Amino acid sequence: MNSKQSDRRRFLKEGAALAGLAVGAVRAARGQTTGIETLGLRPDDYRAYGMRSRFVTSVRTVGSRTGLLTPLQDSVGIITPSALHFENTRGYPPPDIDPRQHRLLIHGLVDRPLIFTLEELQCLPSVTRIYFIECGGNSGGRTMTKNAETAQQIHGKTSCSEWTGALLSLLLQEAGVQKGASWLVAEGADLGKRTESFQMEKAMDDVLVAYGQNGEPLRPQQGYPLRLLFPGWSGSFCVKWLRRIKVVDQPYLAKWEIGRFKPDSEGRIPFPTGQAPKSVITRPSGGQRLPGPGFYEISGLAWSGGGAIRRVEVSTDGGRTWKDAQLQEPVFRFAHARFRYAWNWNGEETVLQSRCTDERGQVQPTLAELGGISALDVAEGRFIDYWQKSNDESGSNYIQPWKVTREGSVRNALF
Amino acid sequence: MNSKQSDRRRFLKEGAALAGLAVGAVRAARGQTTGIETLGLRPDDYRAYGMRSRFVTSVRTVGSRTGLLTPLQDSVGIITPSALHFENTRGYPPPDIDPRQHRLLIHGLVDRPLIFTLEELQCLPSVTRIYFIECGGNSGGRTMTKNAETAQQIHGKTSCSEWTGALLSLLLQEAGVQKGASWLVAEGADLGKRTESFQMEKAMDDVLVAYGQNGEPLRPQQGYPLRLLFPGWSGSFCVKWLRRIKVVDQPYLAKWEIGRFKPDSEGRIPFPTGQAPKSVITRPSGGQRLPGPGFYEISGLAWSGGGAIRRVEVSTDGGRTWKDAQLQEPVFRFAHARFRYAWNWNGEETVLQSRCTDERGQVQPTLAELGGISALDVAEGRFIDYWQKSNDESGSNYIQPWKVTREGSVRNALF
Repeated sequence: MNSKQSDRRRFLKEGAALAGLAVGAVRAARGQTTGIETLGLRPDDYRAYGMRSRFVTSVRTVGSRTGLLTPLQDSVGIITPSALHFENTRGYPPPDIDPRQHRLLIHGLVDRPLIFTLEELQCLPSVTRIYFIECGGNSGGRTMTKNAETAQQIHGKTSCSEWTGALLSLLLQEAGVQKGASWLVAEGADLGKRTESFQMEKAMDDVLVAYGQNGEPLRPQQGYPLRLLFPGWSGSFCVKWLRRIKVVDQPYLAKWEIGRFKPDSEGRIPFPTGQAPKSVITRPSGGQRLPGPGFYEISGLAWSGGGAIRRVEVSTDGGRTWKDAQLQEPVFRFAHARFRYAWNWNGEETVLQSRCTDERGQVQPTLAELGGISALDVAEGRFIDYWQKSNDESGSNYIQPWKVTREGSVRNALF
Repeated sequence: MNSKQSDRRRFLKEGAALAGLAVGAVRAARGQTTGIETLGLRPDDYRAYGMRSRFVTSVRTVGSRTGLLTPLQDSVGIITPSALHFENTRGYPPPDIDPRQHRLLIHGLVDRPLIFTLEELQCLPSVTRIYFIECGGNSGGRTMTKNAETAQQIHGKTSCSEWTGALLSLLLQEAGVQKGASWLVAEGADLGKRTESFQMEKAMDDVLVAYGQNGEPLRPQQGYPLRLLFPGWSGSFCVKWLRRIKVVDQPYLAKWEIGRFKPDSEGRIPFPTGQAPKSVITRPSGGQRLPGPGFYEISGLAWSGGGAIRRVEVSTDGGRTWKDAQLQEPVFRFAHARFRYAWNWNGEETVLQSRCTDERGQVQPTLAELGGISALDVAEGRFIDYWQKSNDESGSNYIQPWKVTREGSVRNALF
């Protein structure tokens, strides 16, 4: 036993002695079925682990600058298949982590530094919650291509899963947070050792240390075996391949964090307000085609970092009139909400739009209402320049208009 | 245009004229992303459609007589990954159906026979609901092996998904059900043309014609491109590769249906009561191992054809005392419910059990309470004989006891 292991045992024992929950005694049940029980099926046998039909070809696409985009136009319900969850690292191969070797260290301003194996974490009290993750730059200039036309190309950096894990607050309680600790820094096991700073208030509220996604372990591209979930906040916080959380008294403010934490005039760093309320009609949407006049169900997704979506309105006449869409029940806080609206298309050219309102009463704005960006700006490309230059990750929650031509083509009406 | 197509157009037009919903004018939006938009990613590229970690090896296994079993012992949350959904056809390759060629015919005692393409169905008003499907024979003698030890081997013929589709009642309303029509017969496009009879009352209530599962099209093994969902009823009803529904005035009662529809003493066929309330601790469960005394979260699944699960109790002392487990909220009707219970194992041999109560007040019984089956019967193998001979698909919802030995081995305490 090396000294690190020895330290770990000691801390775990002290933890057990001091805290109500006997984490110190945590031992793991075997997590995975072994080959012995497969009765001749190899894991790559389609009977062992099923595949899609060869006629189903919906895939992630590559965004203009970074990442893999979720094909929202093909979505149904609110769950994003794990295989189609957006991804922000240009598709470089994710770390190939052996779960038996992986550890999560919690240290810094704590009474009892703790090291957890994956199996130990999985023996702790767990929670399962449906949350979206949206890249802070989704539908901003840094996500879409110049000629973005589809829901995927413009809005494809949001996805929604059933996540399972332990609350970070439980782990911190076990470690014993010291006085003066107000921030945390999380680090991933990727080559770049990505770090993210966040406030203690969020950590003690609802941050999840997730190991399960949609009923199975996280996919490697989503941080296998461990990632953080920040309900409602920008996906940037959701550190993947999580291996270390340090409790500190100030943010690290690494280069990439600056845009998220602009100090106010008195130098204080405000608490993030979460992703702005957004909705998009996914069907019919840009790039799709209506074969002719008649009945269509308009369907789409809405979500907000402000909590639950309370209302989605749809306009089928270019914004002159708006009517309430039906929301798929139940609507979860910080999750995609599916909305539906019955529409009879008369064959004339028109524009389809949706706008949502969240539980805080925040209403999704038009592009013009967002301020500083005119339709002319958009047409001349300053729309994309705006976000690229401002480095601002909020403010891209404009209402998405889809133009339906007389021929039934559906196009992005923004560009 | 052949006469069949001509007929179809006529019927659709009449439908449009007569019914409130203009199904006659339904035209499809393009459902799938084309290769053009993939920017160089082939569908088999892991960036386009992600894969599991090579360290995640949980797979379906082959049951003793038929089917592929879901690895419940590895489950988290309530969603079963589509790739791990149980399957009842011995793993024979499913039909390789081209969705552009597939049709759903609704005919028989209707005013307007209808033929739908998949795209037409997808333009209709849709619903998304989380439902379990459980094989009527799950945890009965026809599912498990003689030496069944794991949750997968004994209970692995139940799975739970987010399903999306059109309500069958909407299609029937559109077709115009004639007087005297009281039964329906559904037929699949598999080689055996499996047919299932069911009552009009269920059809007009909540039966779903599903095309979506967990956010993407059904998997071929789950009936791609269409299957029926019967919330709460035996999975046998959920016809896969659905191609025809005939409205009739009596059940067909094909050979395999007899067990499900036993006429009463007056020759009447009773309405199915749905799957009996059942629960099983999935972790720790048979075949797993506890490394030593200490804290463990006991976690499992409960479900019932009677509606929502209202309560799950856990006993960690061989049934002497029972305490309420925590239910993952929200609890959906006719869906798996996840329960959790904090447990400190003192290292002594014991037996873990769970029992559930559904919204009807039905309580999961012990094996002895099921009647006719004693522990001795079980020990001597008459347990399995009982179900195999009786051909009874209900009554296998006994409380599952797991024995924990001093060494930490977890074993099936029934056999």
